[in-house]
Amino acid sequence: MENSRFAKGLELLAKIDGEAGEKVIDSLRDICPDLGKYTIEYPFGDIYSRPGLDLKSRELATVSALTAMGNCIPQLTVHLHAALNVGCTETELKEVIIQMSVYAGFPAALNGMFALKEVLSDRRAS
Amino acid sequence: MENSRFAKGLELLAKIDGEAGEKVIDSLRDICPDLGKYTIEYPFGDIYSRPGLDLKSRELATVSALTAMGNCIPQLTVHLHAALNVGCTETELKEVIIQMSVYAGFPAALNGMFALKEVLSDRRAS
Amino acid sequence: MENSRFAKGLELLAKIDGEAGEKVIDSLRDICPDLGKYTIEYPFGDIYSRPGLDLKSRELATVSALTAMGNCIPQLTVHLHAALNVGCTETELKEVIIQMSVYAGFPAALNGMFALKEVLSDRRAS
Amino acid sequence: MENSRFAKGLELLAKIDGEAGEKVIDSLRDICPDLGKYTIEYPFGDIYSRPGLDLKSRELATVSALTAMGNCIPQLTVHLHAALNVGCTETELKEVIIQMSVYAGFPAALNGMFALKEVLSDRRAS
Amino acid sequence: MENSRFAKGLELLAKIDGEAGEKVIDSLRDICPDLGKYTIEYPFGDIYSRPGLDLKSRELATVSALTAMGNCIPQLTVHLHAALNVGCTETELKEVIIQMSVYAGFPAALNGMFALKEVLSDRRAS
Amino acid sequence: MENSRFAKGLELLAKIDGEAGEKVIDSLRDICPDLGKYTIEYPFGDIYSRPGLDLKSRELATVSALTAMGNCIPQLTVHLHAALNVGCTETELKEVIIQMSVYAGFPAALNGMFALKEVLSDRRAS
Repeated sequence: MENSRFAKGLELLAKIDGEAGEKVIDSLRDICPDLGKYTIEYPFGDIYSRPGLDLKSRELATVSALTAMGNCIPQLTVHLHAALNVGCTETELKEVIIQMSVYAGFPAALNGMFALKEVLSDRRAS
Repeated sequence: MENSRFAKGLELLAKIDGEAGEKVIDSLRDICPDLGKYTIEYPFGDIYSRPGLDLKSRELATVSALTAMGNCIPQLTVHLHAALNVGCTETELKEVIIQMSVYAGFPAALNGMFALKEVLSDRRAS
Repeated sequence: MENSRFAKGLELLAKIDGEAGEKVIDSLRDICPDLGKYTIEYPFGDIYSRPGLDLKSRELATVSALTAMGNCIPQLTVHLHAALNVGCTETELKEVIIQMSVYAGFPAALNGMFALKEVLSDRRAS
Repeated sequence: MENSRFAKGLELLAKIDGEAGEKVIDSLRDICPDLGKYTIEYPFGDIYSRPGLDLKSRELATVSALTAMGNCIPQLTVHLHAALNVGCTETELKEVIIQMSVYAGFPAALNGMFALKEVLSDRRAS
Repeated sequence: MENSRFAKGLELLAKIDGEAGEKVIDSLRDICPDLGKYTIEYPFGDIYSRPGLDLKSRELATVSALTAMGNCIPQLTVHLHAALNVGCTETELKEVIIQMSVYAGFPAALNGMFALKEVLSDRRAS
Repeated sequence: MENSRFAKGLELLAKIDGEAGEKVIDSLRDICPDLGKYTIEYPFGDIYSRPGLDLKSRELATVSALTAMGNCIPQLTVHLHAALNVGCTETELKEVIIQMSVYAGFPAALNGMFALKEVLSDRRAS
């Protein structure tokens, strides 16, 4: 069953994050592969695979939380890609980020929007 | 037009938060009515009234951010009520809160879930 | 000279915080008097006693930071009293707290304002 | 193997947190037993059970992080009990909490110390 | 009246932030001009334009909050410039930043001071 | 005695942080030497020099707190070096960082691990 958590998580990660997620796991390989394993098993194998909330809503929730927290821009960037991958629109992402100005202040919202700007520009370039 | 922001915000606040929102504004009346006015105008008059994201998604985003931030339980409580008022299901709220264990840690998720527990118990009692 | 840091800090604490500051130090007496000693020596003996910024401006800075951080309401309460003790007006405190809605979001500003409401009500009662 | 994560976690939780941990899981039973299950499986079944760091060091690390974060006092309280249960001394806990004044400021350290004060008083009373 | 909030905010932003503020708004133009509009209207049109606290005190409050929060260095940089523009002295800024070591820890104060160092060096170079 | 705090702190800083600590103090010399002085006196002269907790445990506590806070990577980097300097093993540091995924979320743990990756690579290169 452990194996199934990992396998299920890996499949979901590939579907959601594509290359970006894989890169994170890869970059852990030589320093701490166990953290890579947990990052697949718990967030993706256990949580994102749960019924009860669709992937689009899950990614909007993650984008709003990471924008509000404001101290993990690299992960916000990964999840902005992920959100677009699973069908969130640019408009929806902008709305969630603007809304964070209410709950976490304008600096958090501005930094979230600048992360989105880079993500969109990267996707257009590739 | 200022007046229209306030009027639009007040209407939306009533629709979303019902009594709970009104209570917050009331409790500011004798200390700082201007902050009450801004709380209606900017978050509700300007932001929640924007097209591009439905109220249910907006409330899920707010619940996830406030759960993750973990330092504003009273506002999380108000928005858990609000989320239920605009059609979020208990299941959806639980899923968003569980998911925050991934991004903000288990204490934040646990405190979010205990806030939801109280909100649901209050609604059943009334 | 150590002794002079402590003595200078104690004097300044008494001047700024009055009873409230003393209570904090007292409540540390049976658990960790050393932390009480450090709380007098470094913040008050070293920092608040520095020239270059008057006590009123120092307290406004502290109130704005503690409101924005949002996770230490007891200390915010102590410093709202302190701010009033050294000559900040109610209006100035309200303005600083309202302003935090811009930088740390509306929940932080609301919780700061409710702390001020209680402080003002306590002072009127006594 | 899933079952073994849960079983291993439950055993470790009982050893570390005693009643306090059990109470947290119990209080989730009627609102979200899945979050209780995850709280046993991932933190305790996966992480605390890892070799490479003894339980005493793990609890000191948790106490220092929760003191520094400052927004989850109930969990800090549980882990102060846990730390004492696995052999941390009162002195070690005080030292870690004092040290957080350096990294997260005096309010965080003071609130951590007051949590410890209550924990020690509860243990003496029972 | 909306127009007057925007106009008033734009005028104040120009006075306070000079080019730096304009750049922020410009950089939002192609990704989310509405967030630029809100950033002018609410913080500057509504809040900074309020009587009851002078611009110098407002900027000191903002610098102290952003230093303490520690997760929005770009905005801290903008407001260090702004603070100098409206008449805060280098000494006052240093004092506020040093003081944050008490409330948010030494890392926050150090990162605030390094931001100030860069701001002062940029202003001397230009 | 003041002088003795500074001298004791400087000695301890040299022992713990080696060059990295000295660089931080140096970089404050032309902007705010007083903050450099305080950074030696209070954290190192007063706190790290206390009996009751060994330097290894102190550094593990600091690494866990800074990883959890997530908004001060430069200081985390300094203390990862420091932890290795005073005898923490790579394994212990990895365990503490992995554990922070439980309390502060996976992004905080991942960013902590990437900081450790760079530190280890820097040490191998030199």
